[in-house]
Amino acid sequence: MKAANMLYIVGLGLADEKDVTVKGLEIIRKASRIYLEAYTAILPVDKERLEAYYDRPITIADREMVESSSDTILENADKEDVAFLVVGDPFSATTHTDLLLRARKLSIPTQSIPNASILTAVGATGLSLYTFGQTVSIVFFTDDWRPSSFYDKIAENASLGLHTLLLLDIKVKEPNLQQLARGKIVYEPPRYMTVAQCCIQLLEVEEERKQGICAAEKLAVGIARAGGGEAQKIVAGTLEELAKADLGKPLHSVALCGHRMHEMEWEFVREYAVDQGKFDEIWKREYARKG
Amino acid sequence: MKAANMLYIVGLGLADEKDVTVKGLEIIRKASRIYLEAYTAILPVDKERLEAYYDRPITIADREMVESSSDTILENADKEDVAFLVVGDPFSATTHTDLLLRARKLSIPTQSIPNASILTAVGATGLSLYTFGQTVSIVFFTDDWRPSSFYDKIAENASLGLHTLLLLDIKVKEPNLQQLARGKIVYEPPRYMTVAQCCIQLLEVEEERKQGICAAEKLAVGIARAGGGEAQKIVAGTLEELAKADLGKPLHSVALCGHRMHEMEWEFVREYAVDQGKFDEIWKREYARKG
Repeated sequence: MKAANMLYIVGLGLADEKDVTVKGLEIIRKASRIYLEAYTAILPVDKERLEAYYDRPITIADREMVESSSDTILENADKEDVAFLVVGDPFSATTHTDLLLRARKLSIPTQSIPNASILTAVGATGLSLYTFGQTVSIVFFTDDWRPSSFYDKIAENASLGLHTLLLLDIKVKEPNLQQLARGKIVYEPPRYMTVAQCCIQLLEVEEERKQGICAAEKLAVGIARAGGGEAQKIVAGTLEELAKADLGKPLHSVALCGHRMHEMEWEFVREYAVDQGKFDEIWKREYARKG
Repeated sequence: MKAANMLYIVGLGLADEKDVTVKGLEIIRKASRIYLEAYTAILPVDKERLEAYYDRPITIADREMVESSSDTILENADKEDVAFLVVGDPFSATTHTDLLLRARKLSIPTQSIPNASILTAVGATGLSLYTFGQTVSIVFFTDDWRPSSFYDKIAENASLGLHTLLLLDIKVKEPNLQQLARGKIVYEPPRYMTVAQCCIQLLEVEEERKQGICAAEKLAVGIARAGGGEAQKIVAGTLEELAKADLGKPLHSVALCGHRMHEMEWEFVREYAVDQGKFDEIWKREYARKG
């Protein structure tokens, strides 16, 4: 008996083409069509390298395609296998929930192949995954759009002593607004928020709010190219220090330390400190035994 | 040039032997020694099946070995590769942080190979991973040991409207206390807490605390054998309903719904409801637009 056809949402993991699971790879290699979601995260390897490794052609699915033309993706998925690839884990972005709901409405069977996510890979910093509160997104500020509701969410987590994972903005295939006003669609080069840019924004909002939630001496950890590979880089320090840190190429994320940070977490994280003496001094004064 | 030898902590994912990543599989197949951590989680396939798939022998590492004899595991790991396998993701259990810290003290290089974790696989329920608060462990109650500090943690998450993931107790290789008193070590059969057992304990503690945090009509989702495979089962309902639900073989986990549960989450989760009408009615009355 032939297995039923369906839509597979396959997590690719975080670092490179070999982070796919064996199960995921088998599904990709037998799928009729393969899409790669490429606007909420990026894999540090390009499409060509993935195509060579899978020995299959891949269609890049940008935001417009997933949100407006999902029927193209789902077409015939009850008669042939379609693989929709996502960087990290299928459930780490709401867009995929959306796609699953639409498939359900069309009575197309679905299966998700889980994988590593930044939500757990941040554990490489030494901070305990069990002690994180809600996850927060940080968007690029513009001259006239500086949303700071993230500050309230961080404050909520901090009120319980919990860490906060900050997911940093990605701008891929954004049209140039001046060109758009002239009726031309020209895309801006992609932009990825860095740990430093994020911390500068946090310090700016602290200036306005003045509740101390994102004060200059708050401890945080930046992680770049998370996923355990050699390219992964972790830097710990105060927000002021991290606002000057250079962690290199994308993607970057930031974890803000809550005051329940345990001694074993501190022992692990301090190895990554910009200034270990300062890190230890602040941890002992402001965090240790405050849980 | 030969790559440096080291200790690899390899996440195996959640469902079966094919959930290992391609990178993880390559490391396992070339390692000199392979250990499998087998006391904080279980893979629903046995050691023999893993050994056949890897074509390599595996040593089971129980709690005693990891906590008291970690030097055996780390021996010569700077001269040959040692792979320490964990179900799920390396950072999802504190024991692995502990092992990494000990390796660091012995100047043994380490690398972690991330994978799917229950912390993200719970996203299969439809609940948004960004809206979870701290993670809580639920242990088996005994006649004279009924720790209920978990209730306070759930209450903290609930005060912010956040969901709570409950990780359920596992008892593997526990000595029989009566036999132990007679000087004999006899192990009890393994026990894995079910969704129903967990919900019964929550309701019992609610009887004592009476703050409504774990009231009979609170909405929750049980997930068994998470990991996206065909054996995965999800059941949603009130705590009272789930206290009677049978989700079959281990492992089980429970997610308690916070009042920030968004309409799209509800739309997804309700498909798994024991009693959809009741689920909808309670969601609309107690959760919708309360975020």
